[in-house]
Amino acid sequence: MNQDYIIPNEWSIIEEGFEKERVISSESLFSIGNGAMGQRANFEETYSGKTFPGSYIAGVYYPDKTKVGWWKNGYPEYFAKVLNAPNWIGIDVEINGENLDLNKIEVRNFRRELNMKEGWLSRSFEAKLANGTQIEVRIKRFLSLDLDELGAIHYEIRPLNKSAKISFNPYVDSGVKNQDANWEEIFWEALDSGQETDFGFVQARTFKTGFNVVTYMKNSVFLDGKLQEVLPKLEEESSTKIKLNYTLNASENQWVSMVKFGGYTVSTNHPEEELISAAKNLVSQATEKGFEKLLEEQKRAWAKIWEMADITIEGDVKAQQGIRFNIFQLNQTYLGKDARLNIGPKGFTGEKYGGSTYWDTEAYCLPFYMSTKNQEVARNLLAYRYNHLEKAIENAEKLGFKNGAALYPMVTMNGEECHNEWEITFEEIHRNGAIAFAIYNYVRYTGDFSYVPEKGLEVLIGIARFWHQRVNWSEAKGKYVMLGVTGPNEYENNINNNFYTNYIAKWCIEFTIENIDKIEKEFHSDYVRILNKLRLSKAEISEWKMVAENMYFPYSEEHQVYLQQDGFLDKDLTPVSELDKSQRPLNQKWSWDRILRSPYIKQADTLQTFYFFEDHFTTEELEKHFDFYEPLTVHESSLSPCVHSIQAAKLGRMEQAYEFYLRTSRLDLDDYNKEVEEGLHITSMAGTWMSIVEGFGGMRVKDGKLSFHPHIPEQWKSYSFKIIFRNKILTIHVSHEGNSFSVDGEEELEILVNGNPVKVEPGNLVKV
Amino acid sequence: MNQDYIIPNEWSIIEEGFEKERVISSESLFSIGNGAMGQRANFEETYSGKTFPGSYIAGVYYPDKTKVGWWKNGYPEYFAKVLNAPNWIGIDVEINGENLDLNKIEVRNFRRELNMKEGWLSRSFEAKLANGTQIEVRIKRFLSLDLDELGAIHYEIRPLNKSAKISFNPYVDSGVKNQDANWEEIFWEALDSGQETDFGFVQARTFKTGFNVVTYMKNSVFLDGKLQEVLPKLEEESSTKIKLNYTLNASENQWVSMVKFGGYTVSTNHPEEELISAAKNLVSQATEKGFEKLLEEQKRAWAKIWEMADITIEGDVKAQQGIRFNIFQLNQTYLGKDARLNIGPKGFTGEKYGGSTYWDTEAYCLPFYMSTKNQEVARNLLAYRYNHLEKAIENAEKLGFKNGAALYPMVTMNGEECHNEWEITFEEIHRNGAIAFAIYNYVRYTGDFSYVPEKGLEVLIGIARFWHQRVNWSEAKGKYVMLGVTGPNEYENNINNNFYTNYIAKWCIEFTIENIDKIEKEFHSDYVRILNKLRLSKAEISEWKMVAENMYFPYSEEHQVYLQQDGFLDKDLTPVSELDKSQRPLNQKWSWDRILRSPYIKQADTLQTFYFFEDHFTTEELEKHFDFYEPLTVHESSLSPCVHSIQAAKLGRMEQAYEFYLRTSRLDLDDYNKEVEEGLHITSMAGTWMSIVEGFGGMRVKDGKLSFHPHIPEQWKSYSFKIIFRNKILTIHVSHEGNSFSVDGEEELEILVNGNPVKVEPGNLVKV
Repeated sequence: MNQDYIIPNEWSIIEEGFEKERVISSESLFSIGNGAMGQRANFEETYSGKTFPGSYIAGVYYPDKTKVGWWKNGYPEYFAKVLNAPNWIGIDVEINGENLDLNKIEVRNFRRELNMKEGWLSRSFEAKLANGTQIEVRIKRFLSLDLDELGAIHYEIRPLNKSAKISFNPYVDSGVKNQDANWEEIFWEALDSGQETDFGFVQARTFKTGFNVVTYMKNSVFLDGKLQEVLPKLEEESSTKIKLNYTLNASENQWVSMVKFGGYTVSTNHPEEELISAAKNLVSQATEKGFEKLLEEQKRAWAKIWEMADITIEGDVKAQQGIRFNIFQLNQTYLGKDARLNIGPKGFTGEKYGGSTYWDTEAYCLPFYMSTKNQEVARNLLAYRYNHLEKAIENAEKLGFKNGAALYPMVTMNGEECHNEWEITFEEIHRNGAIAFAIYNYVRYTGDFSYVPEKGLEVLIGIARFWHQRVNWSEAKGKYVMLGVTGPNEYENNINNNFYTNYIAKWCIEFTIENIDKIEKEFHSDYVRILNKLRLSKAEISEWKMVAENMYFPYSEEHQVYLQQDGFLDKDLTPVSELDKSQRPLNQKWSWDRILRSPYIKQADTLQTFYFFEDHFTTEELEKHFDFYEPLTVHESSLSPCVHSIQAAKLGRMEQAYEFYLRTSRLDLDDYNKEVEEGLHITSMAGTWMSIVEGFGGMRVKDGKLSFHPHIPEQWKSYSFKIIFRNKILTIHVSHEGNSFSVDGEEELEILVNGNPVKVEPGNLVKV
Repeated sequence: MNQDYIIPNEWSIIEEGFEKERVISSESLFSIGNGAMGQRANFEETYSGKTFPGSYIAGVYYPDKTKVGWWKNGYPEYFAKVLNAPNWIGIDVEINGENLDLNKIEVRNFRRELNMKEGWLSRSFEAKLANGTQIEVRIKRFLSLDLDELGAIHYEIRPLNKSAKISFNPYVDSGVKNQDANWEEIFWEALDSGQETDFGFVQARTFKTGFNVVTYMKNSVFLDGKLQEVLPKLEEESSTKIKLNYTLNASENQWVSMVKFGGYTVSTNHPEEELISAAKNLVSQATEKGFEKLLEEQKRAWAKIWEMADITIEGDVKAQQGIRFNIFQLNQTYLGKDARLNIGPKGFTGEKYGGSTYWDTEAYCLPFYMSTKNQEVARNLLAYRYNHLEKAIENAEKLGFKNGAALYPMVTMNGEECHNEWEITFEEIHRNGAIAFAIYNYVRYTGDFSYVPEKGLEVLIGIARFWHQRVNWSEAKGKYVMLGVTGPNEYENNINNNFYTNYIAKWCIEFTIENIDKIEKEFHSDYVRILNKLRLSKAEISEWKMVAENMYFPYSEEHQVYLQQDGFLDKDLTPVSELDKSQRPLNQKWSWDRILRSPYIKQADTLQTFYFFEDHFTTEELEKHFDFYEPLTVHESSLSPCVHSIQAAKLGRMEQAYEFYLRTSRLDLDDYNKEVEEGLHITSMAGTWMSIVEGFGGMRVKDGKLSFHPHIPEQWKSYSFKIIFRNKILTIHVSHEGNSFSVDGEEELEILVNGNPVKVEPGNLVKV
């Protein structure tokens, strides 16, 4: 835990007091988003102190020219950067001629609140300006869930000690930069700008990708809450910027305010020639409703999300705040409405890592979306990869694979690889496995097999072909081996026979063959279509089978554990607990070679196998592996604590499970990894959800049935969550006194609780 | 072989005919240097076609900000770049008002010659200008060996079909750029410029490193060979450039010419305030002597070098040209006069790789300089590393080592590491071994042990400490293992127990202990001084011993070979001969992961052990290892063919040895690796020398005695070379009819020839 200033609250993230060194951290933590766009909690008015400006539009990216020290064949030409979009929130404020800048004046009673229940961000403070004017300021901002190209700001000021001339100078500005730009290039080309009384816009297009974006605003001003007919002055006008000026006179204690609507219309959603009219249409809808009505709608829309997605925890405010923060951010990032989008590791809260799609989506996020939204959302996530299959085949070809073998990218925005470390890009190939596993997981959970003949099987065949070509026969071992990989534990590079990778490769092949067989029997016309399209022969399939049946797995008889990779036991196996604290986090303290030859594990690797394929192993085996690997694990990946929390819970080690839960759920709030300023860890937030549902709740699906093994941490009085399972909504409430289940709707649901069948009937709370 | 335009000649590199696409290649091949500076064979006059301008000053570098995709702890802040220095050769030429530019006009009878015997570069051609004037041009240029801050150009023109007004516009220009600049920054800060009649200079300083350089010129013009008193016009004047204008009228067939002296005076050799006067002093010496006299001196100076360094080959002009080209370039690059300098991989012929010192110096170059120059030169090369010991200790500390452990940089200019690929910088640590081996090699060859107590032992102790800390105990193997290294074969990264690295580590420790023991007995005061200075205890030494005695070496019982690394036999061991030619060179065709998991070897790795430690193994063992590894070797490092040539010769496989010899000696002339445009492979040229002396000649040193096992390729009639050995100069002549030995001076030399003792007495040619 590296920070502790967020005030515990069940529904809100709250900061009190203004401290400049917290500004960038809070910009991350108070980020808002609506699935289509999002932004860091930058101030509307001028702030001359340290800040990291960020506003992002889903799916709009820039292919930045790759930067490497030494080029290697196969590196991608570019790295898709999360793109800082034009600024629409800006409102410069002048009080009696002095520009308001919190970096330069005395600030009192500063307070921020991110109200997660209702989906808005507020900020308030009092300040004394250099010219002696004292003011009180209240700002509220949200990004509409219903009109997802629209944001709204209400900016209120009153002078406290004298009357004041107050100017609002709202602007839109496409002259923005990325912090993360490899060559310090500008990513936006200014096209146009314009103004019509209260309306202003700048139009800009991304270089290379050609996303055409109109960034617009519409302003109105109020005195004592009454709309004022003020004709704005055009304060600044250029191809990148339109800034207006509204000046009002406020007497002492009189509130003046501005409502600014703004946002983006984008060529991905509108014809280019209609971008401006679409923006006008949006502001006229917004103006008609007004700020308050839009805010009411916002509350209703968020209530609807929470209705399904909420997890309550009684008796532990910090844990409650943590889980809601995670669920809130996931929903701000991705709502599953648009199959072109995905869940970036930083969502709309920062630029780092670039690209929007990692194996995180399949390995961590899918279960959350599958259980809290309708199954179309999960299907969209799968289809995203189907739509990228051609690119994955091209990607594999660049690395020398052939015959339709597919290697999905480690990081992507449009299906093309954009990462550029050879040990990741070329070798962290296990990502293919998670993509196949997600298809399995989806069918297992939803019972919807139709996706497989329709789209999934082609993906599976591409992946099976890849694994088949990626292994080689070892004369020495008399087995197929997989050389030169990086497993989920990125603190090992270019290793041989990573257990997880070999295991999931074997599984992928078997799962593919199983599906081919099923489709041959049950969907014969699809079978014929796909085999013809992919020129897949029985002979090829039997070659795959050879590989799956003869895959090598490193194993230690002495320790009775599968080894993370060949040679793992040659390491000095000193446990993490004996490391001096000054050495942590390793990735900030040790050189890379030292990390690599150490036994320390960044995140679940062999244990990830036990997470995905729990059924393939006994609990005793899980325990042996957990006891062998966990003491060597430093959890320096945000994706690590959740898996460990789930497995600790499964092993009945509730203290440990609880610790891991806190670490995952408050990773950013408490800044465990000293990096919250860069943005939030969005994808691992789904892991937090899993820690409760699959960890404490012990939820599993097998043979079309939900089962639970509920546990509860000592620190909690109770907790509850909801699951959509095959169109039924099940609520589970767990407390030390016992567990209860209820189901919405009209049909009963049969589940297993601690191995025993339980019928949950609508309208009946079943206590177990 | 990718090019074949260099005309075979015993003493010269000759190109005939002007082809634009060869310009950059020839700029590399015709490079000249004098140990203190050097330059690519750029044209003096304007050339608007593709060219790679390069002029370099020994020891003058720029610490360019490191560029990487993803930063890793321990990476150096900067990468020392070989610095393109200001231009002093430039002479724009105007004929009847038209600028001479070979890219734009018809050129006939174009000829270049790099006369290696005499150390000059010439160029001649006829041309017809757009204005109809036909001209003949002859240019000769050299960099003086005696006055090594001075270069000289004689530029002659005659009009062939009419009289002509001819302008020479000589200039000096510090407004130059590096092609290899990570961030496209300018590396030179202009300080001053000035002119006094025929003399002109620009003064500039490198940013960051602050090397202060005066680039000067002094011009004179001639008509029919007679000096003309022409007052030049100041054609251009700025802080970066001084350009003068001399205009003469030549009648048809009348020769007009310019002699331009120029070069650099540098703050590393003069007080800053004396740089200009030093330049003036140089030009007055040069002017007094005149071009022709200086050229005579140049011939004498090169004759002196050749007197000792030449290798003659009868019956094979291409082989003769190859070896002389190699010897010539080595002497152009480094003459051993200045202990601050070293032998950069591209010498003065290009910018690539940066830095000036690699393990190439110790592993490949030392034997050449040790055998063809006085031993002070070799001692200077060793002392270079002694002088960098503190930096090597700091470098190791950055990677977590302590207690004076030293890790020498992979690439350096000033002792600091500047390479930035983790798999090289942090893991290609075997370089430490070659640095220790060079000390052993020096003492073995020269018999001069005094270097060890004076300087060498401290280096050895730093290196022994490094190896001791770098290994770890493997419980599983019951041995010390070395994890996560890159061996000499850079087509493997982050491997465990690289045989070469483990072997040389063990050897380093043993050699260090042996030297400590010897110094304890024979140089006791040095022993006390060093142990106190380094706080070395007997206890520490016995810990080292434990490591050396229990080092693990991967071995295959089945193949009876040491394995290049753990797991090598898991690879698909298809030999190179079965690879499709379209796949070569692998480093241009395959992605990095594919290269890594392949069995293909870039350069001698396990076999490098057999080269350094030949005596530790039987010839049968060498043969087994050669037969196992050579078929897997792609020789995509310039350092590979020479070691294989030597070992093939040792095994009596002369055809193979000859092929490898051609490949190493004509690597650049025939552009085997498709990269001559970037510059020449200077350090591997010493390997070419070794191929003859140690390969065909079978020269070895043992117990203070030289031994020979002469072989001769069928293609040759005879060959001969000279060796300085312990102040005696031995000449060996090998032919199919027999071998003869002679010694200069007054003392006899006892050698072994094919195992039999032979006394070589001065004045007697001994035939064996």
